[in-house]
Amino acid sequence: MKHFSLDEISALDKNFRRNLINSITGFKPLHLLATQNQQGHSNLALFSSAVHVGADPPLVGVLFRPLTVPRHSYINIHSTGYFSLNHIPSAIIQQAHQCSAPYPEELSEFDVTGLHEEKSMAFPIVYVKESPVKMGLQWVEEYTVQANGTIFMVGKIVELILPEQVVGSDGFVDLEQLHLVTVSGLDGYHTTRKLTRLQYAKTDRSSHVIPWQHGA
Amino acid sequence: MKHFSLDEISALDKNFRRNLINSITGFKPLHLLATQNQQGHSNLALFSSAVHVGADPPLVGVLFRPLTVPRHSYINIHSTGYFSLNHIPSAIIQQAHQCSAPYPEELSEFDVTGLHEEKSMAFPIVYVKESPVKMGLQWVEEYTVQANGTIFMVGKIVELILPEQVVGSDGFVDLEQLHLVTVSGLDGYHTTRKLTRLQYAKTDRSSHVIPWQHGA
Repeated sequence: MKHFSLDEISALDKNFRRNLINSITGFKPLHLLATQNQQGHSNLALFSSAVHVGADPPLVGVLFRPLTVPRHSYINIHSTGYFSLNHIPSAIIQQAHQCSAPYPEELSEFDVTGLHEEKSMAFPIVYVKESPVKMGLQWVEEYTVQANGTIFMVGKIVELILPEQVVGSDGFVDLEQLHLVTVSGLDGYHTTRKLTRLQYAKTDRSSHVIPWQHGA
Repeated sequence: MKHFSLDEISALDKNFRRNLINSITGFKPLHLLATQNQQGHSNLALFSSAVHVGADPPLVGVLFRPLTVPRHSYINIHSTGYFSLNHIPSAIIQQAHQCSAPYPEELSEFDVTGLHEEKSMAFPIVYVKESPVKMGLQWVEEYTVQANGTIFMVGKIVELILPEQVVGSDGFVDLEQLHLVTVSGLDGYHTTRKLTRLQYAKTDRSSHVIPWQHGA
């Protein structure tokens, strides 16, 4: 086994450390975060930091890198109050990845990649039409991590759009049916394979396997 | 497509909503968070909220549910200042899942599950011996989400332990070689399958596929 101390990590080559530490938290969810500016001009950015914060109210957190350069997504969210998170199926992984290139604000990643806009009927929210699972969110609050300036932003789900047939009768969503991608490190993309679903853990017994779709 | 509004989500059956909203952020990393109290008594808890915060210094965030009941992990971290995140390979998924049962503080999940402790030589940190990737962390800062009382805690990696052969010459870690698990919803466990690794995105070209292991 290889042991890295903090001093050893700090002394690593910058790119090596970036890959290592970005890899080390494990498999991450992958989304295109879509925003609009006040003029309705759209922006797409690739995010792998979405995290469940709560179910009632439905809250999702996302991390923004320090504001050392203009972050169009961040600025747009503070301008309109809304954003969307769009899941990435394997069929559009190349286009999604391309959205991580630093395009200038006047170029929409929708135009560059050929992905299509889908506007919300109720909110100033734009979605990625090709995404099978779309979350529309309203900004709620945010915190700046003092150690490095990263921003933890929390949004409330105001719209949720997904294929009805992947939602089980118990609410569990079979994401795998949609060929959604998970990411490791900065640039390693994976699909998934079902291992097991286990019943709610109790102290007086071990958990049995449960069906992936309860009566769906 | 099924559209859920916020009002419709709020009106859902509580368990249905819990499964739905926990599913909807996508594939999540899975760790056993290990802590010790002042007496050296160990605790294991299953977490799916670890998130990359920064590479230099190496920072990882994790979410704690509201402190409405005693959270042994949270209390122990504030007592010792340290915790560990241990990745879960598919071979120990049943034991890891069992750690989500609400055992009383005096019962160690190590004893209940048969997983083994491995103590740090340098810090008051305990690891899960069976975990192939172990992160030792020191508490740095935390923020309470006002909307629901969830706590976003940030730790600094002070020790990192993993098999040398999964670390590429560019620092990218081939997690898949270790059969690590990703989780969807509250209880759906998946392994992964490599899709593609793509070179750094630039605005003037599309990204080519790169090898998973650069010269490893």
